[in-house]
Amino acid sequence: MNYIFVSHGDLAKSMLGSAQMIVGEQTNAVAFGLYPKDDIGSLKDQIKAAIEAFGGGKDIICFTDLFSGSPFNAVVSLMGDYPIRHITGMNLPIVLEAFMSRMNEDNSATAICTKLLAEAPATIIDVNHYLAVNLED
Amino acid sequence: MNYIFVSHGDLAKSMLGSAQMIVGEQTNAVAFGLYPKDDIGSLKDQIKAAIEAFGGGKDIICFTDLFSGSPFNAVVSLMGDYPIRHITGMNLPIVLEAFMSRMNEDNSATAICTKLLAEAPATIIDVNHYLAVNLED
Repeated sequence: MNYIFVSHGDLAKSMLGSAQMIVGEQTNAVAFGLYPKDDIGSLKDQIKAAIEAFGGGKDIICFTDLFSGSPFNAVVSLMGDYPIRHITGMNLPIVLEAFMSRMNEDNSATAICTKLLAEAPATIIDVNHYLAVNLED
Repeated sequence: MNYIFVSHGDLAKSMLGSAQMIVGEQTNAVAFGLYPKDDIGSLKDQIKAAIEAFGGGKDIICFTDLFSGSPFNAVVSLMGDYPIRHITGMNLPIVLEAFMSRMNEDNSATAICTKLLAEAPATIIDVNHYLAVNLED
């Protein structure tokens, strides 16, 4: 499985870098950022080249930062041409789970995305509430 | 309202930087990273100094990258001494909403956290599913 991370600014690169601090260096993972001086076309070209480099097939999941943002739209514009999967609103727990899930026996894009989306709502936590509940025990 | 972002590596700084690309420069917001060469004590000291600089009171929300990670634990270790709020698993949609929410009339930490946590599950989206449903319409 191949992962492509795309965001405004450095977020995607830092997401990949911080994930690698925890799970170690990863292959088949690239990150691209959209910067104020860039046009969206060049970002789309970079993503397209990465998709092609990863075989252009069903073994690619793209992660973007924000629904309806320009990085999101760049990926969406490629979804008609390539059978890629796309998850937006990425956070570190989901990205770590993505890296760990590709070592599973069933590591198809469908299996990984199903797992990530099922876990997603529980990855953003009110810690004050969590501690209050757990300190009661 | 004051915001403190804490993560492994550059993620927190990039989260703040990328958010500012969208909503403009923000005051009362700082970001800290834990790097391989750092000890957790110095990260905790930096967060503590920021909490003190922001008044040490109820107008501080900390955002961390990952439940149970070292940055998370550094913030948790300060929650006994300061009445801060803490949300973990941050992503860009939540951070943007945090910046926009502090312009609301009711911009207490409780009101902002309630809003962020209510919206959180819907911020991570399966775009393939979303498009399939919306293209049916």
